Amino acid sequence: MPLNKPTNCEYTRPVYGWPGLGMIYDFPLNEKSRTYLRLESLFSQIRDNLESDQPWAHIAFFKGLFDLQELLERGDLRADLIKDLERLSQRLSHWASLPDVDLEQIKQMQQESSQLSRSLLKSPRPGARLKEDRQLAAIRQRFSIPGGLCAFDVPQLHHWLGTPAIARHQQMQSWLADINLLMNSITLLLGLWRDSGAFSEQVASNGFFQDTAESAELIRIKLPANLSCYPTLSGHKNRFALRFLSTSEQLVGDVPFQLACC
Amino acid sequence: MPLNKPTNCEYTRPVYGWPGLGMIYDFPLNEKSRTYLRLESLFSQIRDNLESDQPWAHIAFFKGLFDLQELLERGDLRADLIKDLERLSQRLSHWASLPDVDLEQIKQMQQESSQLSRSLLKSPRPGARLKEDRQLAAIRQRFSIPGGLCAFDVPQLHHWLGTPAIARHQQMQSWLADINLLMNSITLLLGLWRDSGAFSEQVASNGFFQDTAESAELIRIKLPANLSCYPTLSGHKNRFALRFLSTSEQLVGDVPFQLACC
Repeated sequence: MPLNKPTNCEYTRPVYGWPGLGMIYDFPLNEKSRTYLRLESLFSQIRDNLESDQPWAHIAFFKGLFDLQELLERGDLRADLIKDLERLSQRLSHWASLPDVDLEQIKQMQQESSQLSRSLLKSPRPGARLKEDRQLAAIRQRFSIPGGLCAFDVPQLHHWLGTPAIARHQQMQSWLADINLLMNSITLLLGLWRDSGAFSEQVASNGFFQDTAESAELIRIKLPANLSCYPTLSGHKNRFALRFLSTSEQLVGDVPFQLACC
Repeated sequence: MPLNKPTNCEYTRPVYGWPGLGMIYDFPLNEKSRTYLRLESLFSQIRDNLESDQPWAHIAFFKGLFDLQELLERGDLRADLIKDLERLSQRLSHWASLPDVDLEQIKQMQQESSQLSRSLLKSPRPGARLKEDRQLAAIRQRFSIPGGLCAFDVPQLHHWLGTPAIARHQQMQSWLADINLLMNSITLLLGLWRDSGAFSEQVASNGFFQDTAESAELIRIKLPANLSCYPTLSGHKNRFALRFLSTSEQLVGDVPFQLACC
């Protein structure tokens, strides 16, 4: 039953390296979810490096931002997102009619969802303002050159990195203003998609498992920590096959895992 | 006079963002120094992210490593490096004959330099082993895809990021074994090139300055903190021109700076 408890956010976003806590692998079942997952991962990369004072945090920040710009330049996502947010609202109305649910939380999410889809309708294309930023353009141009961020390549970047953290932080926040709406929409959508799928125990015999996933967007695989294998998924729309590959010399054998179709 | 004091390492490697400490900009005067500076900057990026437990440190680590691989695949640097290390030895012998120098330190550097050039002569081409590594190849292939490091793209990377830090660290160290010799050689060479040039006070009137630099490899510009301009250099071999560009709306005016030809 979805949403009868406050979301435990421990597993609700892509995370890297949680020794001892197990791993979750999210696989998209269509091109749109693939793009959403990529964007979500980039948002997290950008946000986490925004306030970091590590000496090279700007590399991961800019890599995230430029990857994001490239994805956004490929096509306008707003129409898809608005449609998905409206579908989400209908789903939330259906959930509200089920017993034992937190009506307050559902109402709040419905409000958030309709507010986001209204704002998306009126907003300029996300990423358009980023593209016009001259400082970003100068750095982006050099970013694909191997080692191309030296002081002699982009002295303006080095000057900027030498300015007080607070000024840099404000500048980074102003870049992100252009994509905040998109970030919030995708974060809400993927969060609720994930919450809508309950994990069930499964076993992949000899590392292989296949099933159907009616009208699902994502397949989620939860694996215990320290398992020396990882999942790969092939499939499209309704059918999918999982194959677990060993990271050691040993055969993978039967793999117990948890599966959720969202 | 070079080497009459232990090197103050505060300024001897490329650093980003030192508010209050001022900035040094290194400009290469030829293609070879350009490559050395790029490599040195990548070494620093790789090393600093090697032991970091920040969630996205692997992005800067891999970006550094793949950029490095690309530079190394373009051509074999060993011949140039060996020649430069031998020239350095001769220069050190000359310095040893000057008054007030630290003979012990010079002797130690001469030993280090000849040991490195001997090892380079016998070593396999740096980067060759990295290229054969299957795990690196899988990650590298996806690295240029925008947002291409999601769990569904490279599940083996996510599995690896979930393994204990100590195991990952060992793996990263073993990747670096292939380029340690190159790192040490370039670090020694650039360090001594930098030490060989003394800074002198200069003024760029209306932001412009030009001069000759007989047989120099690098031009170094030291600027006080909080100056709202940065230098750009054009030039080649013996002649160079510096132009300081303003980061604000104001005209740049006369710019006091320190200059070293190394």
